[in-house]
Amino acid sequence: MNWLLPEYIADALPAEAARIEQLRRVVLDHFRARGFEFVMPPMLEFLESLLTGAGQDLHLRTFKLVDQLSGRTMGVRADITPQAARIDAHLLNHQGVTRLSYCGSVLHTLPASISASREPVQVGAELYGYAGIGADLDIIRLMAGAFDKIKLPVSRIDLGHVGIFRALAEAAGLPQAAEENVLNLLQAKDVPGLIEACVDVPSPYREALQILPQLYGGAEVLQRAARELPALPAIGEALDGLRHLIEGAPELPFSIDLSDLRGYHYHNGVVFAAYCPGYPAAIALGGRYDGAGKAFGRARPATGFSMDLREVARLAPAGKPSSAILAPNAGHDEILAAHIAALREQGEVVVELLPGETACEGPLCDRKLALVGEHWIIEAIQED
Amino acid sequence: MNWLLPEYIADALPAEAARIEQLRRVVLDHFRARGFEFVMPPMLEFLESLLTGAGQDLHLRTFKLVDQLSGRTMGVRADITPQAARIDAHLLNHQGVTRLSYCGSVLHTLPASISASREPVQVGAELYGYAGIGADLDIIRLMAGAFDKIKLPVSRIDLGHVGIFRALAEAAGLPQAAEENVLNLLQAKDVPGLIEACVDVPSPYREALQILPQLYGGAEVLQRAARELPALPAIGEALDGLRHLIEGAPELPFSIDLSDLRGYHYHNGVVFAAYCPGYPAAIALGGRYDGAGKAFGRARPATGFSMDLREVARLAPAGKPSSAILAPNAGHDEILAAHIAALREQGEVVVELLPGETACEGPLCDRKLALVGEHWIIEAIQED
Repeated sequence: MNWLLPEYIADALPAEAARIEQLRRVVLDHFRARGFEFVMPPMLEFLESLLTGAGQDLHLRTFKLVDQLSGRTMGVRADITPQAARIDAHLLNHQGVTRLSYCGSVLHTLPASISASREPVQVGAELYGYAGIGADLDIIRLMAGAFDKIKLPVSRIDLGHVGIFRALAEAAGLPQAAEENVLNLLQAKDVPGLIEACVDVPSPYREALQILPQLYGGAEVLQRAARELPALPAIGEALDGLRHLIEGAPELPFSIDLSDLRGYHYHNGVVFAAYCPGYPAAIALGGRYDGAGKAFGRARPATGFSMDLREVARLAPAGKPSSAILAPNAGHDEILAAHIAALREQGEVVVELLPGETACEGPLCDRKLALVGEHWIIEAIQED
Repeated sequence: MNWLLPEYIADALPAEAARIEQLRRVVLDHFRARGFEFVMPPMLEFLESLLTGAGQDLHLRTFKLVDQLSGRTMGVRADITPQAARIDAHLLNHQGVTRLSYCGSVLHTLPASISASREPVQVGAELYGYAGIGADLDIIRLMAGAFDKIKLPVSRIDLGHVGIFRALAEAAGLPQAAEENVLNLLQAKDVPGLIEACVDVPSPYREALQILPQLYGGAEVLQRAARELPALPAIGEALDGLRHLIEGAPELPFSIDLSDLRGYHYHNGVVFAAYCPGYPAAIALGGRYDGAGKAFGRARPATGFSMDLREVARLAPAGKPSSAILAPNAGHDEILAAHIAALREQGEVVVELLPGETACEGPLCDRKLALVGEHWIIEAIQED
């Protein structure tokens, strides 16, 4: 019989699970120290609540279930961010800024990529109620700080701004189907397709859409964009925002990509993606999504980021492997029992053998408690 | 519009979520210090794997989904214990003892009780590969130690042993339907029903089944059971095992209940349930379930326990509420930024206000960083 798990679903066995748990704590403590309060939205919600304001993409990624109590359709969350927006809008009711963090499993009907899990452990932070670019800067620094804490170097943070394409599409009067088509071509960086699709778009928007895929690189791209894109107010604001980010965090490896339109239907401002050396996919994604809480009662400014702890755990440098102390069964020996308890209080892992148990195949025991004369001492275990 | 969540499903907002997270860490660290290795089985498995060896009860409690990649039926786990047994049997392949721990959400189609969540956060520990009662004692002590760590007093630990009823039913030659009927009457402590149902059962098994509901109380129940129950070998072994537990951990508030047959179809030895003062339901449940891994390749002795962290968090005494320090926006002020970073390194929560943000509605800020002369100092915030 074949006890395989479904594709893109896996157990995390002790070494990996310990790593994920350790990273979880470091990242959540990092968020907490900065005032981001931890919340735990549920795995299940009514589908209409879970998908409010979300695109078709999230709909397709969400598993549906029938609620036996109400007969209504529920979804298993595929993304925690909209749940955090619901909590901000509907439950917390703060007038000022709300800072939230979360960490938990989400399920996807299909993997997001060939290397992705269908059960990412999504950890993230969201900031509500602040429309200024300062909030985006704060979130990007929060993200960069998290990577510092877990010692995973970030080689590049791509910045984009969905407002630029949106302003161009609107000014050009693109019908929705054409906008979708151009959006897809931009994301695929399909320049010949783009030229063809824009042939009927009026100047200067045609040229602007056609050069968007070239507008990537360092901060100098912002000057080029200001020169070559139409002087629409929304474009000016977007470019100003991006400049503010680059100047506000000169220590970060920013790179501009104005045709990066991931999450276009969801986002409405700055978007960003962090990359690690030697890993082709983005390791963390974020951006602004003002108004996501509108359907829940309040349209609030919103920005945040999240990442998959399973993926992060594969890439982050492994800490030193933990080791354990092997102890004989204490039985009614109170002195030995007290020794074992004291070592555990000091943070040691002590495996107390059961009567008759002779060796430990679990945690790596490199030391043992041994009775020498009248004293229990810790001895190194000799490798065979 | 009504953004209610499904019944028996709830958000954990900051205070509750912080409490659950803190308890999670204390309990998992307690397990870890004793050599129980953390694993993370997936939320989703093929149904046949998830329900192998489980009773009808778990089947009904499990949400089913179709895997779009294979077309096969998957289940969302309703219990992590069988997953741990699969990992022990199929993946780790230890010859000796395996000690595993886990913590994660499980989903139930219907709540287990009127006060239960449909999304418990199940935390538990399992010990595989040791048939002796010493493993049960170890697990019960592990459980009691966890309650000590989280300062939740345990008023009673009920001990039972499903082997006693099983031996009586077998010796009496009860057909399966009659066994089920008597089992249900025993669990309901329905003595008149039991007398009627056992009318055709041969002596001495009839009398034995009828007195089972009376066999609860202190350790003296074991002597009474030894006198009044038939001298079947399995019954003698069961009573010896229970006596061993009571003598092995005289510090624990044990109580015997020989008609407690929870999880009868799953368990095959000692079963136990822990209770807290003033809370009617069991707060933690466990017992022996040898052979659960058989379908996965190896029938191994198995014993363990688990509990719902949401429930535990409601009952455990609240720690002192955490407080935070409010700081002005550091902007380009490197001295202030260094102060904020240092405080965070010391474990303080520091909310750095965004430009123009004046107050914090999130973490309770009882202090603030203020510039007095040339120095940043921490001042108490006066309540209005």
